[in-house]
Amino acid sequence: MKKLNIAIIGLGNIGSYLYKYLKDNKNILAEKNNCLPIVKYVSAKNKKKKRNIKIKKSQWLKDYLHCTKLKDVDLIVELIGGAEGPAKKLVFDALKNKKHVVTANKALIAKYGDQLAKIAEKNKVNLEFEAAVCGGLPIIRSLKEGLIANKISRIYGILNGTSNYILSSMDKQNKSFKEVLHDAKRLGYAESNPSADLNGDDVSSKLKILSSLCFNSFLNSNIYVEGIKEIDKIDIDNANNLGYKIKLLGFAEFFKKNVYQSVHPTLIKKDSYVARIDGVLNAVIVDGKPVGQSTIQGEGAGPSATTSALVSDISSISRGNIKFPFSISSKERKNLKFKNIEERIFSAYLRFEVLDKPGVLSNITNIFSKNKVSIKRLVQNPIKNKRSSSIIIITHDAKNKRLKKILAKISKQKFIRQKPKLIRINNL
Amino acid sequence: MKKLNIAIIGLGNIGSYLYKYLKDNKNILAEKNNCLPIVKYVSAKNKKKKRNIKIKKSQWLKDYLHCTKLKDVDLIVELIGGAEGPAKKLVFDALKNKKHVVTANKALIAKYGDQLAKIAEKNKVNLEFEAAVCGGLPIIRSLKEGLIANKISRIYGILNGTSNYILSSMDKQNKSFKEVLHDAKRLGYAESNPSADLNGDDVSSKLKILSSLCFNSFLNSNIYVEGIKEIDKIDIDNANNLGYKIKLLGFAEFFKKNVYQSVHPTLIKKDSYVARIDGVLNAVIVDGKPVGQSTIQGEGAGPSATTSALVSDISSISRGNIKFPFSISSKERKNLKFKNIEERIFSAYLRFEVLDKPGVLSNITNIFSKNKVSIKRLVQNPIKNKRSSSIIIITHDAKNKRLKKILAKISKQKFIRQKPKLIRINNL
Repeated sequence: MKKLNIAIIGLGNIGSYLYKYLKDNKNILAEKNNCLPIVKYVSAKNKKKKRNIKIKKSQWLKDYLHCTKLKDVDLIVELIGGAEGPAKKLVFDALKNKKHVVTANKALIAKYGDQLAKIAEKNKVNLEFEAAVCGGLPIIRSLKEGLIANKISRIYGILNGTSNYILSSMDKQNKSFKEVLHDAKRLGYAESNPSADLNGDDVSSKLKILSSLCFNSFLNSNIYVEGIKEIDKIDIDNANNLGYKIKLLGFAEFFKKNVYQSVHPTLIKKDSYVARIDGVLNAVIVDGKPVGQSTIQGEGAGPSATTSALVSDISSISRGNIKFPFSISSKERKNLKFKNIEERIFSAYLRFEVLDKPGVLSNITNIFSKNKVSIKRLVQNPIKNKRSSSIIIITHDAKNKRLKKILAKISKQKFIRQKPKLIRINNL
Repeated sequence: MKKLNIAIIGLGNIGSYLYKYLKDNKNILAEKNNCLPIVKYVSAKNKKKKRNIKIKKSQWLKDYLHCTKLKDVDLIVELIGGAEGPAKKLVFDALKNKKHVVTANKALIAKYGDQLAKIAEKNKVNLEFEAAVCGGLPIIRSLKEGLIANKISRIYGILNGTSNYILSSMDKQNKSFKEVLHDAKRLGYAESNPSADLNGDDVSSKLKILSSLCFNSFLNSNIYVEGIKEIDKIDIDNANNLGYKIKLLGFAEFFKKNVYQSVHPTLIKKDSYVARIDGVLNAVIVDGKPVGQSTIQGEGAGPSATTSALVSDISSISRGNIKFPFSISSKERKNLKFKNIEERIFSAYLRFEVLDKPGVLSNITNIFSKNKVSIKRLVQNPIKNKRSSSIIIITHDAKNKRLKKILAKISKQKFIRQKPKLIRINNL
C-alpha cells in the first residue's frame, strides 16, 4: 500500500489532537484512501510542554524547517499560526521544496494565499486549507468540489463562533457584553486575547478566502470591517422588540464585475435562518446557479472540529486528488474591482441618547430630512429619573455615506449624551 | 489538455439540462479540473421529443448499450431511472467494460449498489451517485470526503421535497392533503404519479445509501417505512397546538453493532432546526466524532440542482480523484444487524375519533394502563353536533410494539368511529 509521510509542525491543542487522531485511525484512513498516513516528524516551540501523546525521540525535528528538505516527508501540516514569522517561512519553503501543505492558518492564507498558490501550482503540489475557514464545516471542499458546477453570486454567514456566542448569550441571558465575554473565556469559547474575534479580523480573513474561491478572483484585501465590541445589551433588546436579532455577519457579493465584502454587526429578521444560529455554531449560505441556495452549518472551531477538516485535506492529498489551491489556476483568476461600502444601500437602526428637552426630536428628524434619508420607524423611550431619552430610528434604504453623514452631524449636537449607534439591517 | 469523453443516456429534463450545461461551461470546467469534458454521445427513448438543445446526428447512439463498448467513451451518465430494466443493464455493462459511471438513480443504487461497487472496484473505475441523494446538497461528497475523519453515529433529515412541501403547505395554507397535492402537481413539485414520494419509498432508498456510507456497511434493506398519505389536516393542527410540527423524517442510527433505519411521519418540536425546514427544501443532519453535528441544507430536486450534483461527480472523476463507491473497500464493508422498530422506544401522539358516550375515556385509558404505557397528556375535544369526540393522547416513552398493541386493541372497540392515528415523536 502507498504511504504518505507527514510532518506536523506546531503541537498546541490542535496539533496534539491531530497527532493522536492520525495514530488511532491510520488503519481506517488507509482503508478509505488506499494510502497509509504516517506521522514521521513533529516540531513544537516548547518541546517539554505536557502533552497527552507519546512521541518518539526520533520523531522530533531539531529544526522545524528541516522537514521542508527531508526526502521522507511528503506533506507538512502547518499549525504554528500567524501571517508572518515561522509559519510564513515554513509554508513558503515547503511549497518551494515540492512538499504538499495542509494548514489551519487563515491569516497566512488571507495574506499570502495568492503567492503561495502560484508556487504550489508551479511545483504541482497541493496547498489545502479547509481547517482555516469554519473548522468542521466542509465549506472549502464544498465550494471547490461539491458545488464546482455553480456560478456563485453571494456568500454570507456566521463565521466566528466566539462573537456569535457572545451576541446570542447577551440576548438570552440578560447579561452585559463584559459579563458574557468573561463567561466565554471561562468556558473556552474565547481566547485570553480575543481581539481578532471581537474586532472582526478573524471573519475578515475567512471571508476574503471564501469570496476568492466563490468568484474565481485573487484575494481582495478591500473589505469593510467592524466588530461587536460596541454592541450594548440595550441594542439587542431594542432589536428584539423590533423583530430582529443582531449577528456579526460576513458578507460577500459579486455583481457587474465588482466584489463587495463586509463584516459588521447586522440586524437580521428574527424568523430568518441566520438569526436562529446560536452559540458557537458557524453557518455559511451560498447562492449559486444552477444549484440555488445551499447552507452548511456546524462546529466552527476547537481541536476536534479542526482535526476533522485537517484530515479531510490529508485524505484528499493521499488519494491524489489534484486541485488548484483556489479552485482555478492562478492564470485564470481575476482581479476584481471593489465596491466600497459608502455607495451601498442599507436600511439601518440608529440609537441616540439625548437630553429630554424641547426641539430635540425636530432637530434630529430635520437632519434626516436634509440628507434625504426617510424614517421608517421612530421610537422614543424616556429614561426614568434622568431627564433623558433614548431615540431609536429605523430608516428606509439609503446610501451608507448618507447614513454616516447623519450620524456625524447628530453626534455634534449639544443634546447628545453618548456616542450614537448605527447598525445596518440586512433583510436576508 | 486531458479530455474526458462522456455519454449521456436519458435525455429527459435532467439529461437535457446537463447536456446544455456541459456545452456552455466546458471551458470553466476545463480550467478548474485541468481536463476538458466532451459530450461525445447521447441516447434517449424518444429521439424525436422536442428538446431545447442542439444535438449533432453523429452524437446519437443507435443502441444505448453501445456506449459501454466504444473506445472513445470514458464516462457514462445514466439518467434512465428505475432499479431494473435498461438502467440496470446499462450500469452493470458500463462498469464491467471499465467505464466510469455517474448516476442519479437512487432506486438502482439502493438495490444493486453493493454488487455494482464490487465491479467498479475490481475494474478500478468510479461509480458516483451524488445526484441520487438530495439533488444539489453535496451530502455524499461531504460524507466520503469532507467528513471522512468522522465516526458517524446518526444521520437524519428531510430527504423528500415533495412530502415536505405537502406537509408544510397543509400547515400554513389551511388546506387538505388532497388540495395541497393538487397544487404541488400544478407547480411541478410533485410528479403525475407521486406514490414513491408519498409512501416513503423515495426516502427509504436515499436513507439506505446514506446509512451505508455513514456506517461503513453494506446496504441494509431492513427499514421501517411509512409515508404521509394518512396525515390529516387535523393532525397537523393538533401537533401545532401541542408545540410540534409533523415532518416525514428519514432516520438512521448505529449503536452496539446494530443499525436502525426508519422513515415515518414524526412529531418534532416546533423550535427545532428540522421543524423549520419548509417547502421543497432538503436538510441532512449528521452526528459524528470528532466533528460534532453538521448540517447541510439546500434544493433537493429538479434539473438545476441535480445537474450541480452530476457535474461535481464528473469533475471529481476528471481530476482523477479515485474513490471507493461507498467510501471504503467492499472487502472492509460490514454486514450490520438490523434493529427492528418494534423494540425501539418512542413517545407518541395518538388520535381516536370516538362516539361521545359514558365509559369511553375510562375504556381507553384502561387499555393504556394494562399495556403499561403511561399517558403524558390527554385532550378531549367534542365535535359539534356530531355526538362524537376527538381524543388526543401524548404518551411517555414506550416500546413501539406496545404502542401498536394498544392501537390494535382500541381500533376494535365499538365506540371507535375511524381508524385511529399513531404518529411517533422524536425529541431532536
